Amino acid sequence: MSESRPVITVLIPSDPDNPRPTPPGLERIEDRTEIRLATAEQLPEKLPGSQGLLLWDFFSDTVKNAWHAADELQWIHVAAAGVDKLLFDELRDSEVTVTNAQGIFDRPIAEWVLGAVIAEAKDFAGNYRLKTAKQWKHRETKRVQGAKALVIGTGAIGREIARVLKAAGLEVTGAGRRAREQDEDFGVVVLSEDLAQHAGAFDVIVNAAPLTPATTGMISEEVLNAVKPGAHFVNIGRGPSVDEPALIEALREGPLGFASLDVFAEEPLPQASELWELENVMIASHMSGDVEGWRDALAELFLDNAERWLADEPLRNVVDKTAGYVPGK
Amino acid sequence: MSESRPVITVLIPSDPDNPRPTPPGLERIEDRTEIRLATAEQLPEKLPGSQGLLLWDFFSDTVKNAWHAADELQWIHVAAAGVDKLLFDELRDSEVTVTNAQGIFDRPIAEWVLGAVIAEAKDFAGNYRLKTAKQWKHRETKRVQGAKALVIGTGAIGREIARVLKAAGLEVTGAGRRAREQDEDFGVVVLSEDLAQHAGAFDVIVNAAPLTPATTGMISEEVLNAVKPGAHFVNIGRGPSVDEPALIEALREGPLGFASLDVFAEEPLPQASELWELENVMIASHMSGDVEGWRDALAELFLDNAERWLADEPLRNVVDKTAGYVPGK
Repeated sequence: MSESRPVITVLIPSDPDNPRPTPPGLERIEDRTEIRLATAEQLPEKLPGSQGLLLWDFFSDTVKNAWHAADELQWIHVAAAGVDKLLFDELRDSEVTVTNAQGIFDRPIAEWVLGAVIAEAKDFAGNYRLKTAKQWKHRETKRVQGAKALVIGTGAIGREIARVLKAAGLEVTGAGRRAREQDEDFGVVVLSEDLAQHAGAFDVIVNAAPLTPATTGMISEEVLNAVKPGAHFVNIGRGPSVDEPALIEALREGPLGFASLDVFAEEPLPQASELWELENVMIASHMSGDVEGWRDALAELFLDNAERWLADEPLRNVVDKTAGYVPGK
Repeated sequence: MSESRPVITVLIPSDPDNPRPTPPGLERIEDRTEIRLATAEQLPEKLPGSQGLLLWDFFSDTVKNAWHAADELQWIHVAAAGVDKLLFDELRDSEVTVTNAQGIFDRPIAEWVLGAVIAEAKDFAGNYRLKTAKQWKHRETKRVQGAKALVIGTGAIGREIARVLKAAGLEVTGAGRRAREQDEDFGVVVLSEDLAQHAGAFDVIVNAAPLTPATTGMISEEVLNAVKPGAHFVNIGRGPSVDEPALIEALREGPLGFASLDVFAEEPLPQASELWELENVMIASHMSGDVEGWRDALAELFLDNAERWLADEPLRNVVDKTAGYVPGK
């Protein structure tokens, strides 16, 4: 029996101080699998004979670099929502199934977006700036109720953002690959490729799209110049979806009023980035979805998929490797 | 006809640079009233013969100091939600009706509170602090959904806060003068006088109570020491409802985790206040309800009441001068 146990290799951080060493709860499947732990460096030697691979820790080229050793691989689970950094041609062309952590981050990210929207409307950035100067200064703020938001990305995260923003009284429109009139979460969905022609109608524009060839650079200089004067841009998707130099220019010279950014073209955001210097920017460190307990939730989702895989049942969150995300509605 | 037009005196700011000089739209009632504009200094000479008084601009003792000249006064309208600074014994004992601007600020304040709640959960304060240092630092944040909030004050503002927090997924309890089990907005309402015994059960405690003798100092050292470790206190009510030195101590030494404060014992908040220095505090300048268009909305509510008054119809937002607020449910 033990001879036939499938092998799941778990990619773990090399750094022993990493707060996220191994997934909690692996003992739940230990009787039915052989678990191998591997750092990025060890992956090429541990991968042969593995049928499953959990990317618990993940850096861009790790899997690609070890791909030659993936002799029996059937399934890769990514403990993250975005798989843009994982996908490469040989993996796309292979029979290997890729699943991800879709669902874990939806609500926390949607809360973060709503918080960012209200914080901008109420000038919380000004509160912190004035506090440093111990300065009391009354300002008029903005209403959130009735404000118009465009959410780019009609996947699970975009939909949860739409629901949470609507609950707070915003009017929400979606932007996606297919235009439609009666989407259950968005009502109207406009075409992402026509962003420049729609951007001017919204007080808030949220990027929640996965990074794919179609979304790379999608929020272009043209789009950023077409926004309503004073509009607020929120990015919890991926940095490379935005033309970052054009974003900086639109924040510095207008028309953009404010940006709340959790993701960047390069992460960590380089010290030299002008974004650090702009008053009308909030910067978070790619953490909008990472609420207390997120690692437990990520491990739980992996274990659930592992049990399905061991029982030969359909997996959750299967990524369309050509599209680059889990297909939704 | 013009001989019999009632006189409404409007208390306006003395400072000519005040951005809020006179109420917009007074021409709507000019044909039926005589409008007198008066600064605080001019009020004693303008008040005789006035039946109505609009406190468009207002400082603590202005009306009390001019009270001897209020020979024909029937009605005072306060263009604010709180009337604590207006009420004095002679006015309380008089036949003069007092109305206020209840309703105008409810939704904007509720939005501000929700924004403060999410901003604290997601450590937006940390985002701004780290930005100043150009420091990228991933942190785990908190979920808002399922967090437990206690809203002190079951008036119109407290109720709107409850509705908006619930829409974002928080579990809300009320605290008021009367305990009850099935309030339509709060579900359970506990007694404000038992705050110390309830405080430990909540992640967020919001003060939305009017300032009255019963609420002065209500959020006492005992209450502040009884909160859950790391709890978040939000004050959009009145500063004197809180023991401010005890608040500072609870923020500095625990158990309080964070405070989002729009109101203070003394306003503007004195330069010497330690609150300016504490990292775990957000300070706003008594502005949480003041969204763009608030002056128009305040003027509109006054004009509506003025037309009712001229037509001898019941006024909106009549303050119970003994209680110190507009009685609600």
